[in-house]
Amino acid sequence: MDYNSIFKAAIDRLHDEDRYRVFIDILRTKGQYPNARCFGGNGPKPITVWCSNDYLGMGQHPSVIAAMEEALHDVGAGSGGTRNIGGNTHYHVQLEAELASLHGKEAALLFTSGYVSNEAALSTLGKLLPGCVIFSDELNHASMIAGIKSSGCEKRIFRHNDLEHLEELLAAEDPETPKLIAFESVYSMDGDVAPIADICDLADRYGALTYLDEVHAVGMYGAHGGGISERDGVADRLTIIEGTLGKAFGVMGGYIAADKTIVDCIRSYAPGFIFTTSLSPVLVAGVLASVRHLKASNEERQAQQNAAAMLKAKFLDAGLPLMPSVTHIVPLLVGCPAKAKRISDILLAEYGFYVQPINYPTVPRGTERLRFTPGPTHSEALMDQLTTALVEVWDRLEMKKAA
Amino acid sequence: MDYNSIFKAAIDRLHDEDRYRVFIDILRTKGQYPNARCFGGNGPKPITVWCSNDYLGMGQHPSVIAAMEEALHDVGAGSGGTRNIGGNTHYHVQLEAELASLHGKEAALLFTSGYVSNEAALSTLGKLLPGCVIFSDELNHASMIAGIKSSGCEKRIFRHNDLEHLEELLAAEDPETPKLIAFESVYSMDGDVAPIADICDLADRYGALTYLDEVHAVGMYGAHGGGISERDGVADRLTIIEGTLGKAFGVMGGYIAADKTIVDCIRSYAPGFIFTTSLSPVLVAGVLASVRHLKASNEERQAQQNAAAMLKAKFLDAGLPLMPSVTHIVPLLVGCPAKAKRISDILLAEYGFYVQPINYPTVPRGTERLRFTPGPTHSEALMDQLTTALVEVWDRLEMKKAA
Repeated sequence: MDYNSIFKAAIDRLHDEDRYRVFIDILRTKGQYPNARCFGGNGPKPITVWCSNDYLGMGQHPSVIAAMEEALHDVGAGSGGTRNIGGNTHYHVQLEAELASLHGKEAALLFTSGYVSNEAALSTLGKLLPGCVIFSDELNHASMIAGIKSSGCEKRIFRHNDLEHLEELLAAEDPETPKLIAFESVYSMDGDVAPIADICDLADRYGALTYLDEVHAVGMYGAHGGGISERDGVADRLTIIEGTLGKAFGVMGGYIAADKTIVDCIRSYAPGFIFTTSLSPVLVAGVLASVRHLKASNEERQAQQNAAAMLKAKFLDAGLPLMPSVTHIVPLLVGCPAKAKRISDILLAEYGFYVQPINYPTVPRGTERLRFTPGPTHSEALMDQLTTALVEVWDRLEMKKAA
Repeated sequence: MDYNSIFKAAIDRLHDEDRYRVFIDILRTKGQYPNARCFGGNGPKPITVWCSNDYLGMGQHPSVIAAMEEALHDVGAGSGGTRNIGGNTHYHVQLEAELASLHGKEAALLFTSGYVSNEAALSTLGKLLPGCVIFSDELNHASMIAGIKSSGCEKRIFRHNDLEHLEELLAAEDPETPKLIAFESVYSMDGDVAPIADICDLADRYGALTYLDEVHAVGMYGAHGGGISERDGVADRLTIIEGTLGKAFGVMGGYIAADKTIVDCIRSYAPGFIFTTSLSPVLVAGVLASVRHLKASNEERQAQQNAAAMLKAKFLDAGLPLMPSVTHIVPLLVGCPAKAKRISDILLAEYGFYVQPINYPTVPRGTERLRFTPGPTHSEALMDQLTTALVEVWDRLEMKKAA
């Protein structure tokens, strides 16, 4: 067997399609976000990050840093075990209570990442419900797709946010068949939002459970950062809400919130939860501070919304091809993987602006884009510089503008 | 659909089989391992932890703590993105180089956990090799089983460490079929070790790739902590070595090390790597210090081996049913889930000794056990107290002793 040529061919395919990924080597500079240092070439050079998912800058918030430093000195670096074998710290217990309360649920459960929370929760739910059919939005995240696949359940894919199509698929199943509707609140590459209440109506009508991924909304929407489901006043209608601790909360990890029995089932049956070292108590302590801060403070959320609105307006004024987004996500359509990468390379090398090209399989082919995530730390002056740079590059590459 | 009764029944099954897991709520005390505080009842009470996988106490090592504190203040709490989108920090790049060098491989790749590294690497390898058959030791960890299942490959399970059975299965396949042998070096619940060189011989004879999980060996075996494969001088014969950063290295995370092309393939194709926020730079900085320390220092490894040998001798002298183990793992057979839990409860409540009962599905039914992991921080006096307590409980519950 010539294994090596098989692996080489797999890499060649990516180069041929202009979607081989090169990672930009950076260190953000705490206290000075969005500033960072970019490594490579002649040593570190200063850059501005425009594509971080640390949406609110909580990764540099003084209470988060202080809580992590305190935990580091009190209990040390890692947890030393799975949740069941020595790795269940008092921080974990406290954070799960805090997250349950954030979503108005009885219980919550931590995972090492949002990816793992989706994979573990969906696969376990599906396995526990005999004959369950899972209804999945076509743009659901890779981690939800992995969980649904691993559940072994039959899957029905409904067109993105399409209530009619979802209803059609629900109606086609036997009323006695267990059903689960899995979807996201904010779709992170387009910035659109699911009609949660309407989906809950359908779930009620057809006796389905609901699973909502709020990873791009928790911390950022709702009066306490409970996500779009809090903003829309529908959190109590959802069976399971899933979130991340690695985006707006600024640290790392994932979770689900639901009623006690469901959380206990996933805690007790999900291999991806059971057989893994628990989150470092240092991280958990930081998240606890972050969640508590964002429950009480609207300042960061407001500043992010203002920044997103301002950047969208500037892009539109400049005739740049802004994609429709009703959230904090600001995507510019490029439509070609090589060009998306080229623009990103020029912005980084010549302007010190870091925005990653988003290519297949993260987005469908032909919709390659640049995705900006302005937040409380991006000033208007920076936005003006960015817009000017983009217009210059768009002209240089003879790309179509919107107006 | 009465979903609630289905979920309730799933929990009832666990109670009926005496394997419902109750998590012990603790905080270890940095600088004073194995001491910890146990919460619940009338507030925190002091306990001694006997079942941590922070095998060498690196979670409280001053260089690890200092490195994490420095990173926390330099770059902040989280990475803010996937490796591809803003989350590739200079620490990640440095740690991957360090881990590649630890195993004498060209490259390494970080994951958010050892579980994810096995799941992502095995499933992706299997998908990239058309028609691949995976040969899996029957005692492989849940994460390897998940990865193999998700690969979609045919699986052949060989009896634990049984070379004849493995050869029989290899010989039964077409020579042109791609093959991968997946196994562990140290099996963590029994403490036995795989015949790595012999398995590599078979791999050579039948043209198979090899995938070795060293999570319970890295940091602890070999002159530089490269694991059993370093100790046995066979690291270069293995295609892929997988390890964890959450056990002997004391922090959190997982990795693989292999040649550049294979690492690039997994980096480029594994959803569990691509679509997840990268490890917090704070953790990565801590691991970097830990790996570097254990490359240079044998002190912790030696102290752990001494502690394990001493505890085994004391258990044998006392007639306790020590299971055969050639490593740092010290398991005592109980053989009944209810009794294993009862002993553990008595030890914690009456003696302040924390050792978790290990029940199905972590170990086969009928082999329920207590699993001790003595290390550099467990003194001989503590071991004497533990042995006395165990003998007292064994007598109280009228359990058979070995001699």
